[in-house]
Amino acid sequence: MSSQSAVIRLTDDEIREYLAFACRLGELGGEVILPHFRAALAVDNKAASGGYDPVTIADRAAEEAISREIARVHPEHAIHGEEHGRSPGVSPLCWVIDPIDGTRAFILGQLHWGVLIALNDGARPLLGVMHQPYVGETFLGSPLGAVLRRNGTEHRLHARACANLRDAAVCASHPDQFARREERAAFDLVASKARLARFGGDCYNYCLLAAGLIDVVIESALFAYDVQALIPIVEAAGGVMTGWDGQPCYQGGAVIAAGDPALHRTLLEVLGWAVA
Amino acid sequence: MSSQSAVIRLTDDEIREYLAFACRLGELGGEVILPHFRAALAVDNKAASGGYDPVTIADRAAEEAISREIARVHPEHAIHGEEHGRSPGVSPLCWVIDPIDGTRAFILGQLHWGVLIALNDGARPLLGVMHQPYVGETFLGSPLGAVLRRNGTEHRLHARACANLRDAAVCASHPDQFARREERAAFDLVASKARLARFGGDCYNYCLLAAGLIDVVIESALFAYDVQALIPIVEAAGGVMTGWDGQPCYQGGAVIAAGDPALHRTLLEVLGWAVA
Repeated sequence: MSSQSAVIRLTDDEIREYLAFACRLGELGGEVILPHFRAALAVDNKAASGGYDPVTIADRAAEEAISREIARVHPEHAIHGEEHGRSPGVSPLCWVIDPIDGTRAFILGQLHWGVLIALNDGARPLLGVMHQPYVGETFLGSPLGAVLRRNGTEHRLHARACANLRDAAVCASHPDQFARREERAAFDLVASKARLARFGGDCYNYCLLAAGLIDVVIESALFAYDVQALIPIVEAAGGVMTGWDGQPCYQGGAVIAAGDPALHRTLLEVLGWAVA
Repeated sequence: MSSQSAVIRLTDDEIREYLAFACRLGELGGEVILPHFRAALAVDNKAASGGYDPVTIADRAAEEAISREIARVHPEHAIHGEEHGRSPGVSPLCWVIDPIDGTRAFILGQLHWGVLIALNDGARPLLGVMHQPYVGETFLGSPLGAVLRRNGTEHRLHARACANLRDAAVCASHPDQFARREERAAFDLVASKARLARFGGDCYNYCLLAAGLIDVVIESALFAYDVQALIPIVEAAGGVMTGWDGQPCYQGGAVIAAGDPALHRTLLEVLGWAVA
């Protein structure tokens, strides 16, 4: 059976149910991770010295907790996690997990990291959640729309119109993150013509693109678990997220997200040329 | 009267009183700023279209509110603000204000920005506060120590030992922020020998250095109001913050902060050489 033919069609009620479950998984991961965030600050944290590696411990513990909960509630579903790889299921539905996206930010005590949870329907990510437990924010995306939840309030997310690069805010995680020299040069070219370019941000940049605050995110060398939760958030807000070749980027690689489809088309010209 | 001879010596009680006042000023600024943060998300925000410039409006309104409160409570004190420049006082004590440090982050909806409030004693910043109203964090530094306050809890801040660059996490706001070509090249040289380099962060990087999570922050082209609130936080945590020439950086310029004084000395060799 090909992955295409295995695609499952979900009803709106099923989407709502899985979305609520994805949020619970994100919060569960957040609870496990939080005690390790800025652990150097906790005066009585004896573990904070002597080979203590907060991000690795938090990453693994969160993925274990999330995977256990999936196996308990949906034992038929597959799981694809950053830390523990793939565990197959009898259903084509697969949960794709990155317990801490933005590990460098996490290590430094910065705030631009989050727990990523996606549900893949056998061919593509159907819904995604980005949860930041320290700040208490959850970004959600699905065929039912994209929203930001915080403190009991909910805001609908809409990517903004920005057809011209000279008006655009362009983001990437780090200059060294571009795996190949031509990728870095292509990013620099795009950034040089933008209104504003900024490094840092990781998963937050895609969510803020969905929120109409960032216009373009360009990255490379990503994994499936880095992107699958973010694609439904970007798309449900009206944005476009693909590979630099314009093809689906469900498996990661070199990725471009744009809030305005016209700007996405323009940028593909140069990014596609760079990697052709 | 030279600024040196005008220096005021404060008692511990006076420092505590001014520190509490500085926190109140930071919170006051935060209250004015918050409605403009991610204003695109507020569905009913009519102002969000048509020439609305949230960061400029928030910046000015916050500085006005802060300046009014200083003039009301301490009319004898001077004020030096990012937006409105200097207003003299009969006392050598001067409040140095940056209502939104990290305006690019603010514009993009990112989280690494804050309200900076410093009290200068006529020669140097005596105490400083960095307040992030969305996340609800306040970092404070004075001769009485450095702390992070959040949700009614308080953590003492201690910069960490890190004598070797190969073990260090090095941060800067943006590659283009280095005003001169040799400054950028010098930063790249240092970053190339570090364990981890990261862009983005602005005022947060100095506070996280004080918290023992970042080892080095290197920047250039800063103003007095960018640095005066941060110097007391870094120093009270045991860190060192100077110009690239090793001299005091109270007026901004090219700045290096290090959590470990030994690493600071090592880095001055190359940074000083670059700008000599």
